[in-house]
Amino acid sequence: MTNVTENITCPVKRIECIPPEKIYSKGTIFPLEVGMKRVKLSKTYFCNGQEFSSLPLYDTGGPYSDPSVSIDPEKGLPPIRKSWGFQRDEKAASSITQMHFARKGIITPEMEYVSIRENQQLEEWISSFSRGGAKVSPITPEFVRQEIAEGRAIIPANINHPELEPMIIGRKFRVKINANIGNSALGSSIEEEVEKAVWSCRWGADTVMDLSTGANIHQTREWILRNSPVPIGTVPMYQALEKAGGKAEALTWELYRDTLIEQAEQGVDYFTIHAGILLEHLPFAEKRLTGIVSRGGSIMAKWCKYHKEENFLYTRFEEICKILQRYDIAVSLGDALRPGSIIDANDEAQFGELKVLGELTKVAWKYEVQVMIEGPGHVPLHMIRENMDKELAYCHEAPFYTLGPLITDIAAGYDHINSAIGGALIASFGCSMLCYVTPKEHLGLPDRNDVREGVIAHKVAAHGADLAKGNPVSWLQDELMSRARYSFAWEDQFNLSLDPEKIRAVHAQSMAARGHTEKNPHFCTMCGPDFCSMKKSKEAAEQE
Amino acid sequence: MTNVTENITCPVKRIECIPPEKIYSKGTIFPLEVGMKRVKLSKTYFCNGQEFSSLPLYDTGGPYSDPSVSIDPEKGLPPIRKSWGFQRDEKAASSITQMHFARKGIITPEMEYVSIRENQQLEEWISSFSRGGAKVSPITPEFVRQEIAEGRAIIPANINHPELEPMIIGRKFRVKINANIGNSALGSSIEEEVEKAVWSCRWGADTVMDLSTGANIHQTREWILRNSPVPIGTVPMYQALEKAGGKAEALTWELYRDTLIEQAEQGVDYFTIHAGILLEHLPFAEKRLTGIVSRGGSIMAKWCKYHKEENFLYTRFEEICKILQRYDIAVSLGDALRPGSIIDANDEAQFGELKVLGELTKVAWKYEVQVMIEGPGHVPLHMIRENMDKELAYCHEAPFYTLGPLITDIAAGYDHINSAIGGALIASFGCSMLCYVTPKEHLGLPDRNDVREGVIAHKVAAHGADLAKGNPVSWLQDELMSRARYSFAWEDQFNLSLDPEKIRAVHAQSMAARGHTEKNPHFCTMCGPDFCSMKKSKEAAEQE
Repeated sequence: MTNVTENITCPVKRIECIPPEKIYSKGTIFPLEVGMKRVKLSKTYFCNGQEFSSLPLYDTGGPYSDPSVSIDPEKGLPPIRKSWGFQRDEKAASSITQMHFARKGIITPEMEYVSIRENQQLEEWISSFSRGGAKVSPITPEFVRQEIAEGRAIIPANINHPELEPMIIGRKFRVKINANIGNSALGSSIEEEVEKAVWSCRWGADTVMDLSTGANIHQTREWILRNSPVPIGTVPMYQALEKAGGKAEALTWELYRDTLIEQAEQGVDYFTIHAGILLEHLPFAEKRLTGIVSRGGSIMAKWCKYHKEENFLYTRFEEICKILQRYDIAVSLGDALRPGSIIDANDEAQFGELKVLGELTKVAWKYEVQVMIEGPGHVPLHMIRENMDKELAYCHEAPFYTLGPLITDIAAGYDHINSAIGGALIASFGCSMLCYVTPKEHLGLPDRNDVREGVIAHKVAAHGADLAKGNPVSWLQDELMSRARYSFAWEDQFNLSLDPEKIRAVHAQSMAARGHTEKNPHFCTMCGPDFCSMKKSKEAAEQE
Repeated sequence: MTNVTENITCPVKRIECIPPEKIYSKGTIFPLEVGMKRVKLSKTYFCNGQEFSSLPLYDTGGPYSDPSVSIDPEKGLPPIRKSWGFQRDEKAASSITQMHFARKGIITPEMEYVSIRENQQLEEWISSFSRGGAKVSPITPEFVRQEIAEGRAIIPANINHPELEPMIIGRKFRVKINANIGNSALGSSIEEEVEKAVWSCRWGADTVMDLSTGANIHQTREWILRNSPVPIGTVPMYQALEKAGGKAEALTWELYRDTLIEQAEQGVDYFTIHAGILLEHLPFAEKRLTGIVSRGGSIMAKWCKYHKEENFLYTRFEEICKILQRYDIAVSLGDALRPGSIIDANDEAQFGELKVLGELTKVAWKYEVQVMIEGPGHVPLHMIRENMDKELAYCHEAPFYTLGPLITDIAAGYDHINSAIGGALIASFGCSMLCYVTPKEHLGLPDRNDVREGVIAHKVAAHGADLAKGNPVSWLQDELMSRARYSFAWEDQFNLSLDPEKIRAVHAQSMAARGHTEKNPHFCTMCGPDFCSMKKSKEAAEQE
């Protein structure tokens, strides 16, 4: 077994790595190498007649989880997508988006990449899996292509982000999570933000949004992009507002457009654009308890009211799509009117905007721009289902990407848990990606530890939803974990968990605090040897 | 406003108190004084036409949250129930249980107490509340009586626990949470455990289970009981096993019975009794991935197999009920066969036992013993509903009390979040009480901070479920919180949150780290002044 306790220094300043075992699966259509983490197990487990002495895991860590890769943050990550030999320009001069190729029946390297990635080298297991109803099949590049062609899934992958390891967002795939980072006028340095981005994906974030609003927005984003193996999203309005001196009324289409292009050139993979909030919605928003709680939304509302004009992101949306199309940037249609309190949930303002997002989805698809739809927000448990149902109906099954939902307003300090509860539920209903919330939500900017807590809380939610949806790969991980638990294989339990480093440390502490030194005690460290139910249960079963 | 930052020393050793404002509501039938915490608000908020410049909160902290009470842990808390003038012996010589009186049509002080407590002095608000459908009414002592008579709710209150502030467990009342404490052979002192008990109820635990299995079980329990304003539950089998030298096969009925009586005399309010696991279930349990994960269950399974006899907790159940009846101890029918992995969820073993628990419920009710039913465990999200539905059907609507459920097996280190997700869902379906899980679950014994994390995570879940069920009092708290948030009333936000101390500290840190010193900044400390959506949203709304 890899000696996981021996830390090595990661070349990114001040970040320490624990070396995992990294493996690569090769593409059959394209010369791809899809990275995964492999957990070596201390013994062979039998699941449904198949033997497992290791388990490949989906890995969002990119080169950071491969100790053999030398990383120089000044140079950035290797531009892997450049070597895949897919000549976009030759194949299709008219458009270069994934949706364009998908509609033409063409499989791209990105499509093959995500199909390999989702299967985790477990095709045999997937094919044999039957728990809970319908049989499932491994994901094929052709299946990915169909889902993208229909708009039910997206691969956010700007042609200028060659460092990217493609991933797919759609409800027939693993539930994904996003981590927000970014400085604000209240501080935090470039270095801190790059560090948070790297750690986010090491802990399991599938995408990262850089929501910087303070100083050095361009430079921060550049460093993040060049060092990011996951798609990077932004809200271009934030930088546009900085350029407008912080005054919403001073914003212009030209200033916004230039910002889009600036960020597109850098390689941002998806843009949140609050194009769905219209003048007609504002009276409804004003009746609310908490008005508009989306930053981008409140900026546009202020602009619209000042100029007595319709939202230029709406009126110029076709022009925006033409820019996005050139880079294959996905649009994440922002929910400017998401509820900021449970009392505002599912109101006319929210669902009125959602209908407009459905309209805009059709416009984007006309330009073969990939679309996802952003969702709430604060929604009590019993009103969550309606959000998912309406999103699918109004937005033609475009993937849903929600912030929580938070199921109560009073959980400040614990909003990551609040959000994980609502997130697990909506993801089990079909939401494709959860935006994390950290314990600092409503209180301040997250630090590195908050990012970790936020990421893992939402990994629990996403994984729980995958299980509820019958994902065979997720079920296997739980089965192996429980087999390891029942046989007191502590190292296997650590490695199969969502945060091995943390629980390894906690377990060692618990043992040491109690004066135990065994590395693999044959009892649960919670209850001690005499009261270990698993031990007794085994003894009972063996007794005749 | 109370100066909450000025800590005072609580007489219980090493516990610091933050003085809340404590108020008392008087009974109209009995001379009761029902304690609540009152949050003074910095301004007057208007909700649905009513004015609120303060909000009474349900308070589980008992005398610990009243700075005017002097507490001497050596003496224990004041025996408040002794002064309520309810002469049980005179009124009903045949039985003294709450269920007995309820069936006779008699309202007890405990019934009036919980009705006052649940209403939080908000009768006017409750009567005017109409959000989300059916109108609700304040809870009357008569309504409490009916629910107890029908077995749909319980008030666990041993006649020998006079320090208790009664509370009610049932699905038509606030969702409750339980905190487990207790030492094990692996260590922890009496002092630590008493401290954890006190802190549990201060942070919001409605009941505390003392699951001690190590040394000094009797003494630890005595200190906990004498200093506990919340019901104390135990699993008497643990002490019985200690008396049997840790050997399951050495257990006898007599030894168990004597342990029951010993604990009954001390004042334990409810006993978990694993009477539903039968010989016929064992083959099903042996087919499972993780066998039996209940400690009490695995002990009984071992005993049954060794002696080739039926579970004596089942065969002697009527004798057990006769003991419980004398003290008005509630029985919490243990789910010995709860699934310990999601693959074992909802299987024949689990539901087979649940049916037996339904039978035993009827037996207990024959003796007018109050009953609740324990539930899982590890259950994936989509299989949670079935647990609630079957429990109501098999167990004649006796209150359900679940451990989680945990929605995945792989969240070690984050199992409090895992459990809060499943717990929120099952509570929204009607589960009456959630047993907390701490971040140490599966790894070690919780320390004080783990207890806090576990309690608050499950408060989020329980409160979220209360909102989903349309509890008017819960909705009011959220509404005030959001009104405070939208008006940047930071102190009000802190006080209306589930953990004011923690978020007050976090917010102060965030502000200080960013070089801000205002106590009540008019912007969100996450985004800074220019990007505060609430600020912008207000500006937009005010603009014409």
